[in-house]
Amino acid sequence: MIYELYYWPGIQGRGEFVRLALEEAGADYVDVARLPEEDGMGVPALMKLLDDASDDRPPFAPPFLQAGDLVIGQTANILQFLGPRLGLAPSDDAGRLWAHQLQLTIADVVDEVHDTHHPVGSGLYYADQKPEAARRAADFTQNRLPKFLGYFERVLERNRGDTGRAVGDALSYVDLSLFQLVAGLRYAFPNTTARVESTIPRLTDLYARVAARPNIATYLASPRRLPFNEYGIFRHYPELDS
Amino acid sequence: MIYELYYWPGIQGRGEFVRLALEEAGADYVDVARLPEEDGMGVPALMKLLDDASDDRPPFAPPFLQAGDLVIGQTANILQFLGPRLGLAPSDDAGRLWAHQLQLTIADVVDEVHDTHHPVGSGLYYADQKPEAARRAADFTQNRLPKFLGYFERVLERNRGDTGRAVGDALSYVDLSLFQLVAGLRYAFPNTTARVESTIPRLTDLYARVAARPNIATYLASPRRLPFNEYGIFRHYPELDS
Repeated sequence: MIYELYYWPGIQGRGEFVRLALEEAGADYVDVARLPEEDGMGVPALMKLLDDASDDRPPFAPPFLQAGDLVIGQTANILQFLGPRLGLAPSDDAGRLWAHQLQLTIADVVDEVHDTHHPVGSGLYYADQKPEAARRAADFTQNRLPKFLGYFERVLERNRGDTGRAVGDALSYVDLSLFQLVAGLRYAFPNTTARVESTIPRLTDLYARVAARPNIATYLASPRRLPFNEYGIFRHYPELDS
Repeated sequence: MIYELYYWPGIQGRGEFVRLALEEAGADYVDVARLPEEDGMGVPALMKLLDDASDDRPPFAPPFLQAGDLVIGQTANILQFLGPRLGLAPSDDAGRLWAHQLQLTIADVVDEVHDTHHPVGSGLYYADQKPEAARRAADFTQNRLPKFLGYFERVLERNRGDTGRAVGDALSYVDLSLFQLVAGLRYAFPNTTARVESTIPRLTDLYARVAARPNIATYLASPRRLPFNEYGIFRHYPELDS
């Protein structure tokens, strides 16, 4: 199976959570919108699928994944689909529900990160909503960021056997996504995250262990890993950190 | 199986999407936090489970559902779990993935509705963020609401056979959630929603057909159905409608 990932080129964004799973598993995949238009790829290929009037199950927005005849949208749903196929999900139903629940909570904090720089509207520029962003980011850094990271630390701590994994004793896509969450928060809110990190030793340890995994380390050092920038979800605007 | 639903009393909120599925199916369930404290229920019972330090899979926030030994959080995850058990999900894997994808997209618009009155912080009052709310709501009513409803209309239109259902030809939890979405938007943004409704005939028809289902009609007329109010997610602030 060759998976086709469709996501906006130029940013890590929500697509990155899917990329990390595909990379860790060494899966065959094509990052469609980042390939040349002259080869039938690029953003036109993404838009074609997004606007395909003959598609009876159209996705609302990228990322979406083509796997054979299936087109699957919503990041957490894609990971739920890929997890068992890539060996990155628990084998039991209860474990899979729990992994998905954690992934949806990661999606919630990612949404909130997005809204720190876009509290008024995703169609406007940051420059058009700076006062609102300052208030939203203050609430996020003071209240929400510590609350979410404290929650994930608790999840790691309570996982039976304290295995250093989010779910059970094997690596799952949730661990990879927690790595990405910490990476993004360190980039976007370095001061706030540094202050909070002393209280989340298991999460920072998980970050380091994921980063050191051979396939992930290779990926992070490759041109396939886009740098963080001020077009994605995790943006570093110093005035929003504290 | 007696399901125990945990959600804040006094508001429909995200719990309502779960309630509608349980009610349609005629399931045995207990709405824990709405029952008397002297019977060991009420908000203390909810807080006890939320703060239970011995729970190795703690939910981040309500709603969560206790089903036997399982405690399941995240609204869409609860519905994914309940759907097959209540006869409210497709029988094939691809259909279930698609239903869940739609539910996650409904969750996205619900989040955006929440942020129309709470664009700065969920811990603050609306009165403390009115200017920001005015801008956010303007973007939501002009751009996001029509975009989301147009998407769901397209989903209904393209569903093979134009069955009047979101997925396949049988009622699913997605139909019930689309009913709730339309109900909430009509309450919160009556002017905007009325303007958009002429462009979404299938969605308004689905709304009417769900409302007329015997179990749903009985539920809606019962005291179990809380009224919309200005503490929930769908709030009617006339200044935010347009």
